[in-house]
Amino acid sequence: MNRIRLGMVGGGRDAFIGAVHRIASRLDDRFELVAGCFASTAEKSRASGADLGLPDGRVYGDFTEMAQREARLKSGIEAVAIVTPNHVHYPAAREFLKRGIHVICDKPLTSTLADARKLVAAAGRSNAVFVLTHNYTGYPMIRQARAMVGDGALGKLRVVQVEYPQDWLTSALEETGQKQAGWRTDPARSGAGGSTGDIGTHAFNLVRFVTGLELESLAADLQSFVPGRRVDDNAHVLLRFKEGARGMLWSSQVAPGNENGLRLRVYGETGGLDWAQEEPNKLWFTPFGEATRLLTRAGPGAHAAAAAVSRIPAGHPEGYLEAFATLYGEAADQIHALRSGTIPEASALPSVRDGLEGVAFVDACVRSSKRNGAWVSLAT
Amino acid sequence: MNRIRLGMVGGGRDAFIGAVHRIASRLDDRFELVAGCFASTAEKSRASGADLGLPDGRVYGDFTEMAQREARLKSGIEAVAIVTPNHVHYPAAREFLKRGIHVICDKPLTSTLADARKLVAAAGRSNAVFVLTHNYTGYPMIRQARAMVGDGALGKLRVVQVEYPQDWLTSALEETGQKQAGWRTDPARSGAGGSTGDIGTHAFNLVRFVTGLELESLAADLQSFVPGRRVDDNAHVLLRFKEGARGMLWSSQVAPGNENGLRLRVYGETGGLDWAQEEPNKLWFTPFGEATRLLTRAGPGAHAAAAAVSRIPAGHPEGYLEAFATLYGEAADQIHALRSGTIPEASALPSVRDGLEGVAFVDACVRSSKRNGAWVSLAT
Amino acid sequence: MNRIRLGMVGGGRDAFIGAVHRIASRLDDRFELVAGCFASTAEKSRASGADLGLPDGRVYGDFTEMAQREARLKSGIEAVAIVTPNHVHYPAAREFLKRGIHVICDKPLTSTLADARKLVAAAGRSNAVFVLTHNYTGYPMIRQARAMVGDGALGKLRVVQVEYPQDWLTSALEETGQKQAGWRTDPARSGAGGSTGDIGTHAFNLVRFVTGLELESLAADLQSFVPGRRVDDNAHVLLRFKEGARGMLWSSQVAPGNENGLRLRVYGETGGLDWAQEEPNKLWFTPFGEATRLLTRAGPGAHAAAAAVSRIPAGHPEGYLEAFATLYGEAADQIHALRSGTIPEASALPSVRDGLEGVAFVDACVRSSKRNGAWVSLAT
Amino acid sequence: MNRIRLGMVGGGRDAFIGAVHRIASRLDDRFELVAGCFASTAEKSRASGADLGLPDGRVYGDFTEMAQREARLKSGIEAVAIVTPNHVHYPAAREFLKRGIHVICDKPLTSTLADARKLVAAAGRSNAVFVLTHNYTGYPMIRQARAMVGDGALGKLRVVQVEYPQDWLTSALEETGQKQAGWRTDPARSGAGGSTGDIGTHAFNLVRFVTGLELESLAADLQSFVPGRRVDDNAHVLLRFKEGARGMLWSSQVAPGNENGLRLRVYGETGGLDWAQEEPNKLWFTPFGEATRLLTRAGPGAHAAAAAVSRIPAGHPEGYLEAFATLYGEAADQIHALRSGTIPEASALPSVRDGLEGVAFVDACVRSSKRNGAWVSLAT
Repeated sequence: MNRIRLGMVGGGRDAFIGAVHRIASRLDDRFELVAGCFASTAEKSRASGADLGLPDGRVYGDFTEMAQREARLKSGIEAVAIVTPNHVHYPAAREFLKRGIHVICDKPLTSTLADARKLVAAAGRSNAVFVLTHNYTGYPMIRQARAMVGDGALGKLRVVQVEYPQDWLTSALEETGQKQAGWRTDPARSGAGGSTGDIGTHAFNLVRFVTGLELESLAADLQSFVPGRRVDDNAHVLLRFKEGARGMLWSSQVAPGNENGLRLRVYGETGGLDWAQEEPNKLWFTPFGEATRLLTRAGPGAHAAAAAVSRIPAGHPEGYLEAFATLYGEAADQIHALRSGTIPEASALPSVRDGLEGVAFVDACVRSSKRNGAWVSLAT
Repeated sequence: MNRIRLGMVGGGRDAFIGAVHRIASRLDDRFELVAGCFASTAEKSRASGADLGLPDGRVYGDFTEMAQREARLKSGIEAVAIVTPNHVHYPAAREFLKRGIHVICDKPLTSTLADARKLVAAAGRSNAVFVLTHNYTGYPMIRQARAMVGDGALGKLRVVQVEYPQDWLTSALEETGQKQAGWRTDPARSGAGGSTGDIGTHAFNLVRFVTGLELESLAADLQSFVPGRRVDDNAHVLLRFKEGARGMLWSSQVAPGNENGLRLRVYGETGGLDWAQEEPNKLWFTPFGEATRLLTRAGPGAHAAAAAVSRIPAGHPEGYLEAFATLYGEAADQIHALRSGTIPEASALPSVRDGLEGVAFVDACVRSSKRNGAWVSLAT
Repeated sequence: MNRIRLGMVGGGRDAFIGAVHRIASRLDDRFELVAGCFASTAEKSRASGADLGLPDGRVYGDFTEMAQREARLKSGIEAVAIVTPNHVHYPAAREFLKRGIHVICDKPLTSTLADARKLVAAAGRSNAVFVLTHNYTGYPMIRQARAMVGDGALGKLRVVQVEYPQDWLTSALEETGQKQAGWRTDPARSGAGGSTGDIGTHAFNLVRFVTGLELESLAADLQSFVPGRRVDDNAHVLLRFKEGARGMLWSSQVAPGNENGLRLRVYGETGGLDWAQEEPNKLWFTPFGEATRLLTRAGPGAHAAAAAVSRIPAGHPEGYLEAFATLYGEAADQIHALRSGTIPEASALPSVRDGLEGVAFVDACVRSSKRNGAWVSLAT
Repeated sequence: MNRIRLGMVGGGRDAFIGAVHRIASRLDDRFELVAGCFASTAEKSRASGADLGLPDGRVYGDFTEMAQREARLKSGIEAVAIVTPNHVHYPAAREFLKRGIHVICDKPLTSTLADARKLVAAAGRSNAVFVLTHNYTGYPMIRQARAMVGDGALGKLRVVQVEYPQDWLTSALEETGQKQAGWRTDPARSGAGGSTGDIGTHAFNLVRFVTGLELESLAADLQSFVPGRRVDDNAHVLLRFKEGARGMLWSSQVAPGNENGLRLRVYGETGGLDWAQEEPNKLWFTPFGEATRLLTRAGPGAHAAAAAVSRIPAGHPEGYLEAFATLYGEAADQIHALRSGTIPEASALPSVRDGLEGVAFVDACVRSSKRNGAWVSLAT
């Protein structure tokens, strides 16, 4: 079981998500980081590379150069993790995809809908694997929820409530020089959506992942509560699904007391499910007319779909990094399947198409809100 | 401290809310039930009266007869609790109000907006007290939340999330002969709103009570998920307040696993509050940038406004009936104040105007939903 | 359904538990307070009586006089609630019992084991009903737990964990003049036990009530952490039951962060139960090898034994006062049964024998602790 | 930052804790697994080695051979993780320690007190680092609790309540051939303690780690509830500390509904702390007389001691594997410090002395229980 040689674009010093990807790639021992373009100057990139123990020769200041050179190396990277601000996702991914290097890309897919469409096309032309790290889909109890919905445990779905409140942008953090806040509230780097792009896309993706419901249309009321902020920091969205179900989505970065409060509730004709990201090892299940059950990761009643992505016994909490690592593990499975000539099976992994949907979700929210909350469809 | 002589209209055998009003009226020993019109036939009414130990002579089969006769009795009732299905609220209240008998009326105020307006007028013409039992306003920690918002503990408000999910109408209970389900899903008796009328009005009132925010407009998407149901059983509502805050309101009676899940979250520039009806003795408060505090009824940090309506020490849970009783106690205070010639001070008690707003809320939800979720104002 | 005429001994101004008894007696409309000896001087007693709207002629400064006179009155009291400090329970109860007046007495039964034995004898000689208000036995989910254990839902019992932490005596409150703290830490008025007497007896009684297990012996380690305190404020107790089960009991009044944290967990060969007083409407049940169920008062899976003492629908929290009122309601049932000549059936109500056991529990804790935690039996 | 070359003894196919150690060693990229003796036969060991991608030449069937050969290799292992059943810890650790190879050993230290003492001596003679993986000490909020106690946030300590209930041995799992259950209930391999050894040692260590209190004596009541079981499966233990504090410790493997319920509560003169392993990112802190605070990992109020071992932002749950990895990271720090000639500073890492204390704790529990719960001291 050889490790896949991995490169990284972005993720230099002080970047939160780059470090997360590195841990996630390592946790199940399926990847080995061997190269990187960690920053936009060679010097900064080398400093980060040195921190990580990489030889200078494999550290780049330009992702195109990295793609070109690594593609020619005998032991060049086989896959690349793209963990830059959103506007770099497309140009970077394109360079690797066209050289057959597998791409594991952070979300949202791109900063613009046009880029997202181009990236879908680029991925379609490439025979490389493309994985979008909607990491919350890697939680075992989310896999369980998806499997239960698929098995009909809730009956026909009626109502979906999803919310993702945070509080870290309650004040104008972007004006203090904080790096994360800076690019995430800059439309040029982040895209037209603020909370909708950063966390709303996670929430929307989670609904799609668990329920399989197709969005018919949405109506959105976006706000930028913090004076001077250029993107939404709070979004109220109504959802209508093609199958008849209805939903609500709330994303906020100005809700004091909420750290990372992603929560999904799904109700059908015969039952309900409730899951919250901050207690990810629990899933509450109510068959209508019976007592609510507390299902736990690896506990009694755990579904095969949850067991498959669970590492340790019940009661020993797995967390965010493990869920993230599950996506890396499944990416490795896909890459190996492709290598071995077998056609990869349909997978639970978020794909470039899911990424396009996410960007279209942001676009639709912005369009609807500008039209005073009119119902609009996704322009995928 | 003499007890106020109380009559009741509605609340016969098997009626849930009548029994609640009787316990609430008795709990703090401010009222004594002495007469009633418990059902629409004299025979049924007498059976209920007998259960309650009332003499036949004070039990009526017609509320107008009751109002007339009691008004003439030397020791006739001073106040009446109206706990019938909604469409009876107006005609019954009118008869008592015009004879100077104080009215304690269950919510929603009426089944139609026209009736609500007439009842406001009738109350205005009467010198009797009119109290609407939006009982959740009686919870100590709701009083605390209101006081904290009023004191500026959250700063300028931005976001209000309120939800009220239940599951008891997940199936077509009204077709089984269940009495409650029968009238609550019958537009003629309940009004145009289903979940919006029965529980959405509570949710909306609670937002108003705690935050003081004035609704500018709302956009609603109502559904009747159960085949054949004539009123909404799920409502998704977006809220815009005149002060600039935005909100979401969800009411549902088809969400399996939710018993009586009223929950209110309020977020401002400097803090957040979170309260849930099923754990009413707790209020979660986060001053932005500090650790979340668990405030408890009668515990450290309890506000005077909470202490004033708290009966027993912290850790000894008060519940639904105590909150309800608080409204009765405050109604008694108002009645005594009026008696003693003092003008009753502005009170926390929900009034006939709040009732009109609630009926207007239902009306606005129905109008907006019919216009595909257009933004509409309350027609108060 | 005539109300039973009730008197009260103790419970004057500022006394916590007297007010609780009055509300509890009134809540289900089975009693009417008509007389009282609320304080140890006639003047103070009359002041409290006046607060409660009682005529001076029915307010006494001496409980013996009250017993004598009320027994002779045509409409004298039929029952008396004794809510004084512990050392008065026996002399007061004796006077009423010997005149055939039913006694509803607060816990612990007495301040000394000798008094407890004499009270058992006095109750045995009387044909009056004697009820001890171990109020936590009135919670619906405690009734459910008892019924489930009785039905064998847990199999043969193995382990019982009970705890009752509070924090109100963390500092030397008794030195500040606080009345409650004063008598509860005074051995002459409270008895030899501090936390063991005040709350340990509740915990022990709850174990007995729910499990039916008979204590074989206990080993106790008592502490008075607050300098100068004359009774225990923390107790660690090991329990051995005749049936082979083992247990732990912790009572504390010096555990900051705990308001009224009574919690009971029971484990048997095939299942476990978990209940906490501060969330009394919930009972967690785990059939071994299956997912944990959340059973709720009046929700799906509620046992007949819980339903029988439940007033309002699931999700509408009942609390401490309702549980207390349930004991009053059942006391009324016993009194009526006795009146009507029927022999009262075995009842769930805590009796004078349970009271003796509680005082013996305190005595055993004190004896064991003095003997360095030796195993001792109850000297009932 | 070169990775430390790591070997492993134990941890073959199907062993739970070996896989945990491997993930933990990899998570922060400080170690590289290069050799192992994964089973007691060369053939089985090679199969496990192959699973892990190790060359046959670095896989051994005998730990002494492994120690000898690796010590001579130029790039032989620098550290070894010992993850066998308990009785192998001492003989294995001895071989590596005497060759200067650092040891990271699972708990409890040994199966006998004699072995524990010999291992302390062996570690004392070696200049290698010895780390015992009491992994719960690696949780950030446990570090915070320890720092807060040390900073005096609770004042002088009075009461410590620790419990560690599980349910996996509720039935006679050891008779079904389940491997874990087999050796853990076999005194020859596990030691004299069952629940006391496997989880009681964790609980006891956590108390010591967080509070720093020194045990004066304990009194224990052990049970083997499952017929035929040769070690305790439930333990009730009273604790007395030299500083005057008192405590209770409960460990159980027969408590249905408990997965891995380690919980620690500490109470002092001015405050209390409450932490539960299944929600490890939360710590409840009550300064006496103020509202309880919810402190979160990396949230407002996080202590430097917590921040130092936290990887990702608040609200993104870290779990069991991250806490475990923290011990590996700190072991790496110690090894590097030793290498660089600097004397390693006093560390939070559990040491061989803590291990001896743990084995002495089991021994004391067994001795006390045999003497009917007499108070005994640790024979360290």
